Amino acid sequence: MRTRERLASVRRLLDEGNLDLLVVSNPANRRYLTGFTADDHTPDESSGYVVITRERASLIVSPTNLPWARAEADLDNVAVEPIEGTLTATIASRILSRQAKRVGIEDATTPASIWFDLQEALGTDVTLVRLGDTIDNLREIKAPEELDFLRQAARLTDEAFALAMRRLEPGMTEREAADIVRESLRAVGSDGEAFDTIVAAGPNAAKPHHRPGDRPLKPGEPIIIDMGARVNGYNGDLTRTVCLGSADERLIEIYEAVLEAQLAGLAAIRAGVPSSAPDIATREVFASHGLEAFVIHSAGHGLGLRVHEAPSVRRTSDASLESGNVITMEPGVYIEGWGGVRIEDVAIVHDSGHENITSAPKGTDVMQL
Amino acid sequence: MRTRERLASVRRLLDEGNLDLLVVSNPANRRYLTGFTADDHTPDESSGYVVITRERASLIVSPTNLPWARAEADLDNVAVEPIEGTLTATIASRILSRQAKRVGIEDATTPASIWFDLQEALGTDVTLVRLGDTIDNLREIKAPEELDFLRQAARLTDEAFALAMRRLEPGMTEREAADIVRESLRAVGSDGEAFDTIVAAGPNAAKPHHRPGDRPLKPGEPIIIDMGARVNGYNGDLTRTVCLGSADERLIEIYEAVLEAQLAGLAAIRAGVPSSAPDIATREVFASHGLEAFVIHSAGHGLGLRVHEAPSVRRTSDASLESGNVITMEPGVYIEGWGGVRIEDVAIVHDSGHENITSAPKGTDVMQL
Repeated sequence: MRTRERLASVRRLLDEGNLDLLVVSNPANRRYLTGFTADDHTPDESSGYVVITRERASLIVSPTNLPWARAEADLDNVAVEPIEGTLTATIASRILSRQAKRVGIEDATTPASIWFDLQEALGTDVTLVRLGDTIDNLREIKAPEELDFLRQAARLTDEAFALAMRRLEPGMTEREAADIVRESLRAVGSDGEAFDTIVAAGPNAAKPHHRPGDRPLKPGEPIIIDMGARVNGYNGDLTRTVCLGSADERLIEIYEAVLEAQLAGLAAIRAGVPSSAPDIATREVFASHGLEAFVIHSAGHGLGLRVHEAPSVRRTSDASLESGNVITMEPGVYIEGWGGVRIEDVAIVHDSGHENITSAPKGTDVMQL
Repeated sequence: MRTRERLASVRRLLDEGNLDLLVVSNPANRRYLTGFTADDHTPDESSGYVVITRERASLIVSPTNLPWARAEADLDNVAVEPIEGTLTATIASRILSRQAKRVGIEDATTPASIWFDLQEALGTDVTLVRLGDTIDNLREIKAPEELDFLRQAARLTDEAFALAMRRLEPGMTEREAADIVRESLRAVGSDGEAFDTIVAAGPNAAKPHHRPGDRPLKPGEPIIIDMGARVNGYNGDLTRTVCLGSADERLIEIYEAVLEAQLAGLAAIRAGVPSSAPDIATREVFASHGLEAFVIHSAGHGLGLRVHEAPSVRRTSDASLESGNVITMEPGVYIEGWGGVRIEDVAIVHDSGHENITSAPKGTDVMQL
């Protein structure tokens, strides 16, 4: 584990923000900084907060989670301590005992209730400062071993996709197909699913997010499959649109437009370019085919310990891509009543361009199963 | 769907709190009040907020989720509207256009960032008021059809447990055993897992929460299995401690103490008693066996659309049990280096006592597989 150097990076925020202490609530950052792998059920049911000063880092968890956290956390660099009384009271006691006066808090993942209770417990001597996404951004450039986990996750995702596709048959429901994807992910050695697998068939494919249901897969219609393996917490993310039997002219035409857009988006990836460039490149292709009205989401997102993370690659983003960023490229077209097409790969940003770590085939010939 | 009457209940909070508008961020409440089944990835990645006035209820979601939300929400009673600009700006525009002056917000599930951004967008004319868990508490007494879903979830959980137990063998890893549980849940018709299945073998059983790993199951050691089916969003929750082959004297002794505590806890359940009573009853049994030092969590929790919800049944809770509450009873003993034992059933609270909706066997004879 690289806990020591990660904590050193995060501690630079103390100097930059003139802060005495940091309160970390984001589950991905908690894992990144301590090694404790638990997820959160919901924001009001956190699996633990991390409290960091220049001298110490403490992971504060419920007594129920204490043995688990102690088994996983990097105890050379992080103390694991139980909640005493309430979570807020425990955090407040650390802030007071460490005599912190300016405290940075991850406000995007800390509930308002905890912020207010903490402020009340601390009184006006202590100032709470919003950290925004500054800690998330430390995860934006991946270290070599993180890139390896992401490559492994992409490879397992590809393998599971290939396994699952051999088993799809007309008449099977979306839910059964999603179950096959999940079994395939486990069969190739994934730690569960990166996210709930999407299988959206026919008109349901017009919904970018869709919960697989009882609809049977029919020959000739578009079937969107969005799935990901997970390796050491790092996520895969793959979308393919397939068709049982031959696709008709309209599906092939739209599929080719989406593929053209995706390749244009990938071609626009390079360190130093605005992070909006790939999204804009896909939209230009869609406009050239008169499909821009059917584009309802941006073409990608950062990928790592979270399925959606920095950098943002929306057309409105004002950042730049950097070497070591990992982003998805997944343009899609959604037509109500008919269906949709989405094609997604994962790319590592390099100085000279991108490294596509997805290898599942995507030509028009192979999408017809 | 009972959307109309659920919205009527929630609107009573407007009068009680002298409020003009409610902002709902808790995913379970969002589902309960609209029918939209999406979960949240993390608090800073909500699948939608609900804005409720006396006249209108709006579910505000990203354009990506819009078609899914429109397909699931009860459109007779809820308008589904896309985010325009940012989530905060969209909520603020609804508050302003509806001329709300006092706005109640679910502060336990709304990030501090959204609260502050909203306050800034609204100016000082609008007062934001903390709702705490008032909306959660509306779900605390289950309606008849909710009880039916919970009974079905408990029954499927029992069936999947029985299926899975037939397949456990020495040498199989915890992870393989957890995969068998997941397959069994799907085989009996569950909508996925209520939560990540726990299989904790030998010394790992000393961790109430544990991520199943590479440890092989060995004859004679305690193996804790904690699992749940899901039916229409309603969760099952079952824990059994089993042993491959015969258990030694110590395991049987501890198992019998935990079972005695669990039966005492169940026997203490009845409408009108303090909700702390069952937890206290289990602790009295543990104390009589000299095991109180090994008890590290309270004996249960409410169960419904969330795995942990109201009512709280901690010994420190000051509420009372009410008819229609659904709670788990899951005392456990955890001994570092050795392992642990936990036994969990789900009970519906009635005026005259409880209805145990779990039927998986739990005698000392059947725990030895």
